[in-house]
Amino acid sequence: MTVTYEEALASVLPVVRVQEVRDVRLSSVVGEILFRDVLADRNIPPFPRAAMDGYAVLWTGKEADTSYRVVGTVNPGSAWSGDAGDGDCIRIMTGAMVPPPFDTVIQVEISQAAPDGAVRFAAPVKRGENIAREGEDVRKGAVLIPAGTLLSPHHVATLASIGQWEVEVFRRPAVAVLATGSELIEPWESAQGPMIRNSNSHFLLAALKQAGFPEVRYLGIVPDDREKIVSKIREGLDCDFLLISGGVSVGDVDIVPNCLAACGVRKILHKVAVKPGKPIFAGESPRSGIVIGLPGNPVAVMVHFHMFIRPLLLKATGAADYLPKPVHLPLAEEAVNNSSGKKFSIARLESKEGETVVVEIPSHGSGDFVSACRADGVFEIPLGTVRLPAGRRVRFFPIWGNFLSKDG
Amino acid sequence: MTVTYEEALASVLPVVRVQEVRDVRLSSVVGEILFRDVLADRNIPPFPRAAMDGYAVLWTGKEADTSYRVVGTVNPGSAWSGDAGDGDCIRIMTGAMVPPPFDTVIQVEISQAAPDGAVRFAAPVKRGENIAREGEDVRKGAVLIPAGTLLSPHHVATLASIGQWEVEVFRRPAVAVLATGSELIEPWESAQGPMIRNSNSHFLLAALKQAGFPEVRYLGIVPDDREKIVSKIREGLDCDFLLISGGVSVGDVDIVPNCLAACGVRKILHKVAVKPGKPIFAGESPRSGIVIGLPGNPVAVMVHFHMFIRPLLLKATGAADYLPKPVHLPLAEEAVNNSSGKKFSIARLESKEGETVVVEIPSHGSGDFVSACRADGVFEIPLGTVRLPAGRRVRFFPIWGNFLSKDG
Repeated sequence: MTVTYEEALASVLPVVRVQEVRDVRLSSVVGEILFRDVLADRNIPPFPRAAMDGYAVLWTGKEADTSYRVVGTVNPGSAWSGDAGDGDCIRIMTGAMVPPPFDTVIQVEISQAAPDGAVRFAAPVKRGENIAREGEDVRKGAVLIPAGTLLSPHHVATLASIGQWEVEVFRRPAVAVLATGSELIEPWESAQGPMIRNSNSHFLLAALKQAGFPEVRYLGIVPDDREKIVSKIREGLDCDFLLISGGVSVGDVDIVPNCLAACGVRKILHKVAVKPGKPIFAGESPRSGIVIGLPGNPVAVMVHFHMFIRPLLLKATGAADYLPKPVHLPLAEEAVNNSSGKKFSIARLESKEGETVVVEIPSHGSGDFVSACRADGVFEIPLGTVRLPAGRRVRFFPIWGNFLSKDG
Repeated sequence: MTVTYEEALASVLPVVRVQEVRDVRLSSVVGEILFRDVLADRNIPPFPRAAMDGYAVLWTGKEADTSYRVVGTVNPGSAWSGDAGDGDCIRIMTGAMVPPPFDTVIQVEISQAAPDGAVRFAAPVKRGENIAREGEDVRKGAVLIPAGTLLSPHHVATLASIGQWEVEVFRRPAVAVLATGSELIEPWESAQGPMIRNSNSHFLLAALKQAGFPEVRYLGIVPDDREKIVSKIREGLDCDFLLISGGVSVGDVDIVPNCLAACGVRKILHKVAVKPGKPIFAGESPRSGIVIGLPGNPVAVMVHFHMFIRPLLLKATGAADYLPKPVHLPLAEEAVNNSSGKKFSIARLESKEGETVVVEIPSHGSGDFVSACRADGVFEIPLGTVRLPAGRRVRFFPIWGNFLSKDG
């Protein structure tokens, strides 16, 4: 039974088991998923902080009419605790703690030093000016980073600022990768005659590494031989995820689903109304792992690593946001969907005269994965839609884009 | 002298020295920059390849009127070399080599097996149908991946398919990171009174690691003391890049540019008409390295790692595309630029009713780097523009977005 792409995701996601917790050093948290809410350990800023270089005064509203005595200097990292009377001020630098009783900082640009060491100001100021108040950014105890966040360098800055040097993150699922096909040889082998080099497994290993799964069990290539496939599948079922490319179509030699059944894998779905990727198989292993069978078509593997597999991996790693998020952008040219399902078309983004448009990349079909190297991602043509006119806004998924250019 | 953001980049980029070459294994090339054009070692596909399961025939135009004798079977990875007469065909599977003299594949769906082992076809077919022709994707010798490409998992697939197991990439520049400020302590130290934890260095280390520079020399924190700063700078000048946060503003304690001059660093620029990041310093070291001084403001550090430093690092690593590429998207609300330069405002992308809009994130100013955790990137308000109305398309740089969501 063929299901829609959305039904396919909705039927596999609930089967995914979330992993346990582990501690990592702050220097290694980028790409990990936060296990527990991170709370502010103190107010941010932790004290009233000078936002400009200048003079700290106790506001009276008569700053432009008064001559001030400079009774001290306070730099970032030092505290000032002298006595200050009426008409006293202190010199203060950006980032320094504004000591009581002062409540206002007058920027150095409007100050004038008098010959007697006093200082005058050229303009009136507002009370509290040029001070970042204690806790104005964040109050102590507030949630700084919610559990389930995919951690970026920004979060490292936040974690560093509150002194969190060890961080609890979700453990990553173990993943195994297997390629099937008697026509396949490895890249380091010599390719002749009807043999094709295995690119899918090396794509998957690289994409898994990039997505934060560097430790993957690579099971190699297995020919289209039932016994050998079953034996490799049994090895892979030790892992939380087993990703298989090839052998899931209806042809005589596409025997992976049968071999999976023989290994006790419960079929969740086989065939999705999506192009590329129609023969996708998903199942649950006897020890509650997930098995995904992808067609041998390299473009389908590239698309569905991001559109189907990565959401499952992210969910298994505790991520709150695990689905690809589209950007709505207009099509440069008409796009056509001759398939009986949803179509994910590879495309790149181009900007012309202040408008960014989605440019479909013509493909000779399933084997033309070299075209995909020029793509920034995919856009979708919904199931049942045959034609989208130029200019129509589509859901573009920038799954491959690096957003870099020669000319900015 | 203050320069524009574009002038700043244009004055530093030519000073950047490109690094040498090194070999890496295919399994480690993601994120590296390709040194030399990669050419196709053979045609892709390397032979006429069946695109469907079916029967290979020699086209006559009378396929629907003929009964065919099935004289063999060919699977992917095997070759067929029998003799075929008129009215002979062979069973063939997707991905298999179509042997001569056959030139057309008729899909299994329109075939009918006769009781005598012969096969008939229900409909006429076109010559060459269901065959991917040799070289139709790529001709032998064509450039598959140009030099200067930032390699992604897609490129790994391409490299694997042509058997390139070792790849020449550009060597990465050595980078040193230094924080200045007497108010700073490290995240693993206890923060009290006027002290602030160093977040900038740990952001930079994490961002460098994410950008493919995992081996960075971290010089720690140096207080606002001329001699100590000079000594640390001398250490950092051994590297190709020295990134310093803090100490570049005009305040009394902002002494980094003076210390750099004392170390023989030639000033390229100091002060850029951009907010945040106005006090940015750039210089060239005696051994032709690049020194960048950033203000201590964490948002400025986060923005300019991507908008100013990463382009330089990418150029030094041989990248053809090194500038951030914008997406043009409409503003959700009016945006204001009170600065005297270009403004980079932090923002997130939201989709509503089929439209993606740029939502500015209100910031309390320089210290509010926690807000940046919710941002997908920055949009620019050009120098001289005070106000952009809601709905106006802006240049949005998705420098921090992961394009993931709860609901797709």
